[in-house]
Amino acid sequence: MNYVKNAWYVASWAQDLLPEKPYGTFILNEPVVVWRNADGELAAMEDRCVHRLAPLSLGRCEGDKLRCMYHGLLFDRTGAVVEIPGQDLIPAQARVRSYPAAEKHSWVWIWMGDHEAADEVLIPGAVGLDHPDYILGHGQLDYAAEARLINDNLLDFSHLSYVHANSFGAPEAWAYERPKITMLERGVRVERWITGESAVPGEAIGQPIERFASYDFLVPGVLLMTGGNFPQGTSQSLGGGAPDMSKALAGVTFTSQAVTPMTDKTARYFFSWGPHRDHGDEALRDTLMGIAAMAFGEDKDIIEAQQRVMDATPDFRIMPTTADRGVTLFNRLVEKLARDERTRLSVAS
Amino acid sequence: MNYVKNAWYVASWAQDLLPEKPYGTFILNEPVVVWRNADGELAAMEDRCVHRLAPLSLGRCEGDKLRCMYHGLLFDRTGAVVEIPGQDLIPAQARVRSYPAAEKHSWVWIWMGDHEAADEVLIPGAVGLDHPDYILGHGQLDYAAEARLINDNLLDFSHLSYVHANSFGAPEAWAYERPKITMLERGVRVERWITGESAVPGEAIGQPIERFASYDFLVPGVLLMTGGNFPQGTSQSLGGGAPDMSKALAGVTFTSQAVTPMTDKTARYFFSWGPHRDHGDEALRDTLMGIAAMAFGEDKDIIEAQQRVMDATPDFRIMPTTADRGVTLFNRLVEKLARDERTRLSVAS
Amino acid sequence: MNYVKNAWYVASWAQDLLPEKPYGTFILNEPVVVWRNADGELAAMEDRCVHRLAPLSLGRCEGDKLRCMYHGLLFDRTGAVVEIPGQDLIPAQARVRSYPAAEKHSWVWIWMGDHEAADEVLIPGAVGLDHPDYILGHGQLDYAAEARLINDNLLDFSHLSYVHANSFGAPEAWAYERPKITMLERGVRVERWITGESAVPGEAIGQPIERFASYDFLVPGVLLMTGGNFPQGTSQSLGGGAPDMSKALAGVTFTSQAVTPMTDKTARYFFSWGPHRDHGDEALRDTLMGIAAMAFGEDKDIIEAQQRVMDATPDFRIMPTTADRGVTLFNRLVEKLARDERTRLSVAS
Repeated sequence: MNYVKNAWYVASWAQDLLPEKPYGTFILNEPVVVWRNADGELAAMEDRCVHRLAPLSLGRCEGDKLRCMYHGLLFDRTGAVVEIPGQDLIPAQARVRSYPAAEKHSWVWIWMGDHEAADEVLIPGAVGLDHPDYILGHGQLDYAAEARLINDNLLDFSHLSYVHANSFGAPEAWAYERPKITMLERGVRVERWITGESAVPGEAIGQPIERFASYDFLVPGVLLMTGGNFPQGTSQSLGGGAPDMSKALAGVTFTSQAVTPMTDKTARYFFSWGPHRDHGDEALRDTLMGIAAMAFGEDKDIIEAQQRVMDATPDFRIMPTTADRGVTLFNRLVEKLARDERTRLSVAS
Repeated sequence: MNYVKNAWYVASWAQDLLPEKPYGTFILNEPVVVWRNADGELAAMEDRCVHRLAPLSLGRCEGDKLRCMYHGLLFDRTGAVVEIPGQDLIPAQARVRSYPAAEKHSWVWIWMGDHEAADEVLIPGAVGLDHPDYILGHGQLDYAAEARLINDNLLDFSHLSYVHANSFGAPEAWAYERPKITMLERGVRVERWITGESAVPGEAIGQPIERFASYDFLVPGVLLMTGGNFPQGTSQSLGGGAPDMSKALAGVTFTSQAVTPMTDKTARYFFSWGPHRDHGDEALRDTLMGIAAMAFGEDKDIIEAQQRVMDATPDFRIMPTTADRGVTLFNRLVEKLARDERTRLSVAS
Repeated sequence: MNYVKNAWYVASWAQDLLPEKPYGTFILNEPVVVWRNADGELAAMEDRCVHRLAPLSLGRCEGDKLRCMYHGLLFDRTGAVVEIPGQDLIPAQARVRSYPAAEKHSWVWIWMGDHEAADEVLIPGAVGLDHPDYILGHGQLDYAAEARLINDNLLDFSHLSYVHANSFGAPEAWAYERPKITMLERGVRVERWITGESAVPGEAIGQPIERFASYDFLVPGVLLMTGGNFPQGTSQSLGGGAPDMSKALAGVTFTSQAVTPMTDKTARYFFSWGPHRDHGDEALRDTLMGIAAMAFGEDKDIIEAQQRVMDATPDFRIMPTTADRGVTLFNRLVEKLARDERTRLSVAS
């Protein structure tokens, strides 16, 4: 896998991680256990006891420490073994790796790279479930596919016209009109005006509108998207530029999505979606989540099928199209960041 | 896999392939999509979009064309991309492989080799479900085993006395008497006279009979078998030769069977069986199909078990017996044809 | 796998192997068929026909012989082919390997090494289900893990305090006090005095006691354990030495356990447990078996999880603790025996 290590990866929904219930997962092929003490404070470390490799996620929380429940080694939050039952001396190598962890925007984020580089400023600005402006539903989905394929999917919304012809009912314009794509420091911004049948699904349209949709796709694989409906002609009057979202007539929603590479061929996908409080209610949120359940299932079907074909194809090649511009720019950025990491590492050593 | 590419492989029952419902399969490790337009005309091509490898079998038929439902690339029947949404220029390499396809004898056949060599004359003469002389049932079965093991099974009917002791109730003679085996241009012919308890299962025997059974096993893996009951002594009077089937007293049936290698360790097996209209009716056909369901399950059990043992045996060897003569002759023919193909290929390039 | 071949491996419970019902299994990655003739006499051989590798465990017993039910080859108890249907000459290489087999202590044992070295004296002295002194329950469990990991588990009972905190309710002493470990010719002996809450589960304690527990763990992976309750102070009066088990106040039980490596990542675990007739009855046996079902499930959970983490860890290392002494001594013995076998083999050839 060619992924950035110096980045915050979503490990779970914050509310799903209960105090003293360690949770084992994989991120970038590494087994990771995330846990909270009784006060709810987070810790994350290698999910693999230094003794005989039992997963610590089957362990027991004891105050600020986590005990391996195979032979009883006790670990502190830094990953150091602080007790070996019946043994006085604790060897210096008796430790596992720890990971910086943070709870923000309703997600638990894990930093997979150098501890010194871990800066919470780099956590993407997702909209949490408790955000006062939005009424959000949420969910998650496991993929039998490489995370990069999901990123690629999210970076090219031309697929909406085909994959989601039934769920979103997206107009052909999604495939035929090229969005404006801007490089960001750690991602790309994708902006579009869509005319025609382009309201939020489930929303009544009283007048001719056009819809603005904009998302940032940020390292390591986080999509932050908003959109809204404006009177016909707004796009033209702005020269195709971005509108002031607070002036939207209706249909303003926000979705935060995060793709976490677990292993080479598995990934976990976290998402929330819902209307702005001024443009919808719990009923609209539930409608949107019903559509999302269908649409994200469509994505999963095509991406897992794509993965199976790739697996059956030795030395496969892809043939990029102009619609791939966002995909290409983002993947190039990831490659550059990953290369820089390796260079720093080889200079340091 | 060592298989012949210049051959017609059965992809499906013709009646199961509905207009505008693309069907994805694997043949010789290659992903293949087979589809019909609204008029029922067949096309077959690589089931792998040139853009990002999504399977075209999840695509949408549009007249004579097939659209990839990931990002909308449109393919004609030759495999050429004729439209990329939102992109004017279509690169020369924007195409996937196509395969000659034919509908004949109730099966859809795909030619996996050179287009120029595809000749429908080479389609084995199976008896289709609509044949006026026979009342046929049909079915198919998926194997977790290499196709060659199924071919080997069908090329040596000595297994009838053991594998099918319960279903066919075949007499020991199947194992003890050697059939007459004749080389054909693209296969072998296997002929036998069986005496003793040798009626078609389910058929009443009013007088002492003996049964003649003959099948051709043809490249790439198609069995065409008929048989019938004759008065005792017929075999001797013919010097063991083949009788005139139209003179059979009773019990004339026909079975067509095709083995298609999907991947290295999976295969699909298609079959039909039933009585000649003069020697049976729908009730006998149903009896035969019940027996076939049991017998083909017995074959699957032993062959899949054999595959598992082979998988657990590094560098395994087999020890041929005299009963293997048909197996050996057919496999040698396949090896020769496959070798000739590679030679022609290396001369051509 | 690094295991001893010159050893008796448990293939099955003797009572589960019915006359003329061949049973196929794997031992040390080799397919083995074990079977009894109508008189109940045992035979064991390679579960792989020399003809085309079909498993003989799908075969038919015919007196003292076993017939492959694919094409009818007939094998005698030494693995030699004695009949090939329809073929007069039987080639010299027409044989499969046979294995010495023995029924003892309610188990069927298979010797996986040199025939000449097979000596029933080397069968570990398990307590069979028909032993007059014990009332035993029994069972077996399949593992998706390497046998060595189960051996390691059984060689270090410090895990009782953690893995089995809920089932056995083992006191912390199991982890904190080091047992006395003695090398045996083909294994290790592990002896412990446990004070505190240490009765047999389900047994009422009328007076302050201490419990003695002792087991031998023998090549290839057989645990033979007994224990009993003694008046407080017994341990001290014996200087920590082993007591006379016949003087136990109560709580004497016996458990025999055997770990059989099937393939690199699968194993079968056989076990019996129950009270001495003087110290319990069928009801106590059933209580113990209920606890064992829970406890052995806990072992399976942690060991299979450990295996998954190992599989996800290239070039993993373990960090032994002092509690690993029994593990280390036993594994060193196995390595030495396996090395000696290979040396003898290379000298012999």
